Order: sequence, then structure tokens, then C-alpha cells
Amino acid sequence: MLPKSLKNLIGELRKLPGVGPKSAERLSMHLLRSDRSNIEELAEALVNLKKGIVLCGTCWNVSEADPCKICDDESRERKTVCVVEDVMDALALERTRQYRGLYHVLHGKISPLNNVSPHDLKIQDLHSRVAESAGKNGSAISEIILATNPDMEGEATAMYIAELLKPLKVKITRIARGLPTGGHVEYADDLTLSNAMEGRREF
Amino acid sequence: MLPKSLKNLIGELRKLPGVGPKSAERLSMHLLRSDRSNIEELAEALVNLKKGIVLCGTCWNVSEADPCKICDDESRERKTVCVVEDVMDALALERTRQYRGLYHVLHGKISPLNNVSPHDLKIQDLHSRVAESAGKNGSAISEIILATNPDMEGEATAMYIAELLKPLKVKITRIARGLPTGGHVEYADDLTLSNAMEGRREF
Repeated sequence: MLPKSLKNLIGELRKLPGVGPKSAERLSMHLLRSDRSNIEELAEALVNLKKGIVLCGTCWNVSEADPCKICDDESRERKTVCVVEDVMDALALERTRQYRGLYHVLHGKISPLNNVSPHDLKIQDLHSRVAESAGKNGSAISEIILATNPDMEGEATAMYIAELLKPLKVKITRIARGLPTGGHVEYADDLTLSNAMEGRREF
Repeated sequence: MLPKSLKNLIGELRKLPGVGPKSAERLSMHLLRSDRSNIEELAEALVNLKKGIVLCGTCWNVSEADPCKICDDESRERKTVCVVEDVMDALALERTRQYRGLYHVLHGKISPLNNVSPHDLKIQDLHSRVAESAGKNGSAISEIILATNPDMEGEATAMYIAELLKPLKVKITRIARGLPTGGHVEYADDLTLSNAMEGRREF
């Protein structure tokens, strides 16, 4: 019953992650009611998306130039590298304005079930990066912060990297696990509570 | 920190209803990782969306032709018209394959808070449609089913239309209210339960 072009858009939107049939319909109807200029702005943003985006050859973050702004920023703490799974993780850490070191984006996590092995990630590149920096006076990397997600695959990835980098004699740390701000001891799961107890610090 | 074109797409996606900052970021990153052809298919679907879509001048549904397929279908029950708020409501009713009559799409509901008055909807058109059909032998509309949503504004819209069409001596009905399939008497709200009791039918 629906016109072809409307059906077509619904079909395309349904391919996106987290967009079910109802959302795709709702979004399509919203767009159909929008001004032509609005729709064209979105279409243009899509077509231009990949233009001018490269991966930084040092930290593998998305960027407009290689090296990226962060790797190129002399005011940053160049001896610390924070390892994250994805670009958006780095963005979240940047938002805190607390971390002033560099990043290394893995572009995923080790996941045998999804056929993602260490070779599919920027892990070997991290090893080379740390090893090569050791030779350079003053800019040798001294700490690797593993900030992969605290789930099973993220933990496995962190452990794999820690093992791999051990011979390089660099300090390797893992972000803290515990209760999130606003959380409740009463409702926290066992693992989180155990981690919070284990990771306790002097007051 | 994010490249301009990525930021731009995130911004465009955030304008869509129900897409928050996190979803917009997630969708954009997904698209950035997709093949160029996938992205272009979506962009093309957007650009072509309005091409070839018109509103049927009889029922005001979206269509590729005027009159639309349903209004033009001689096998349908032409004496019954189901009044719905939106195109997707008509689509949902079509999916049931139960209803064989015609539709009338209002394109909204009366909502003083959102500045939507009866004149912004296809209500006057409905009045003319019913009035004009009365003259035609054999195809006079005999029943108007009000299938606006069972919320406050949908009810008000239904009441307004019922009042407006009263002088035309056409049978006016309202879709049933009661417990949805799979619902629980225990958890139903008072209004739904009252409606379910009131609308009870002989078994």
C-alpha cells in the first residue's frame, strides 16, 4: 500500500543498528513531512561523511589529518597512552577534560565468537609504537592505560595486551572498576561490589 | 576532536525524532565503517523520497497516484470509511487484512496545546466527502469508523468529527476500547478496565 520510495527509505533505515521496523516507519514519515532542504542536508551529510576522514597513523583515531590533532599537540602528556576499543570511547574520555595523554584506538575487541582475532585490531601497531618510542629520548612511552570495556571480551583484550607488552618493561594499568556515581550498593551486582571492595582506597 | 564531516552527520541525525546524542554518534560511527555503496543507497533513498509521492485527493493517504490504489479498488467496501490520524495507522489496519472499506487520513489530531485546530486537518474534506457521496446512488457512505488514538486528543478529535457529521445522518462508530490481547486484568489501568467492562459483549 505504501509508495515505493517510502518503502525504499524504510528498508534502508532498517539496516541501521538499533532501528526496528516501527522506528524506520516513524523516521520515514517524519522525513516525508519535513522540508526538502532538511532531507537534502541529511543526504549531503551522508555522502560527504567519508570525505576528508583518515585514520591517524599513530593512534588510529579518525581525523582530518595524519597525525591527528591530539598526536600532533605538543602540550599533551606524550608519555602516557590510553588504549580504547573505539573512537567514541576516546571521545568520552576527552569530554571529561581530565586526561591529557595520548590515545590508541584498537577498533574493536578480541572476540573469537565474532571471528575477531588480535590481528584484526591495532594491537601489533600498539606494540610497535611502544617499542619504537623506547629508542627516542624524552618521548619514550612510560605508561599504557588499558581502558577497554569492563565486559568479558574487553577484559580478555586488556589481558592479551598486558601480556604482549610485558617484555617492553612499560608500566601497564587498568581503569578502575567499582560503583558508578549515583549507583546503589543495594542494587549493585556481585561482581561490581567485589570489584568496588577490592579496589578500595584510603580515605 | 571529531572530524567535521562526522560531526556534521551526528548533528543532522540528532534532528530526527527519538534520536539522542548517543544514538546519533553510534549510527554515524556505524555508517563511517560501512561501505560507500551502503551510505549512497541511504542518501539516494532520502533524495528520492518525495519523488512520485502525492496525497490521494479522496482519502489523503500517501500514494503514487491520485486516486490511490485503495480508493481506486472496486473490490473494496466503498460504503465504509475509517478515519485515522496518520498514514501509519491506515497501514497498521491494512496489515490485519480484516478491514475491507476505505480510509480517510486526517494528518494529525486536534491539539490546542500544539496549535493544531480542526482547520489544519483533513476534517472539512471528510465532511465534503460524506456530503457529496450522499447524492451518488449506490456509493453513498453509510458508516464512518472513527479510529483516532484512544488518548485525550484522539478522543477529542473523534468527538469533534462525530458532532460535525451528525447532520449528515451517517452511522458513526468508534473503535472498541478494552484490554489488549495478552493484557492482564490485574495490571490494567482503571480507565482501560472501565472501558473493557462497559464495552462487554455477549459471549
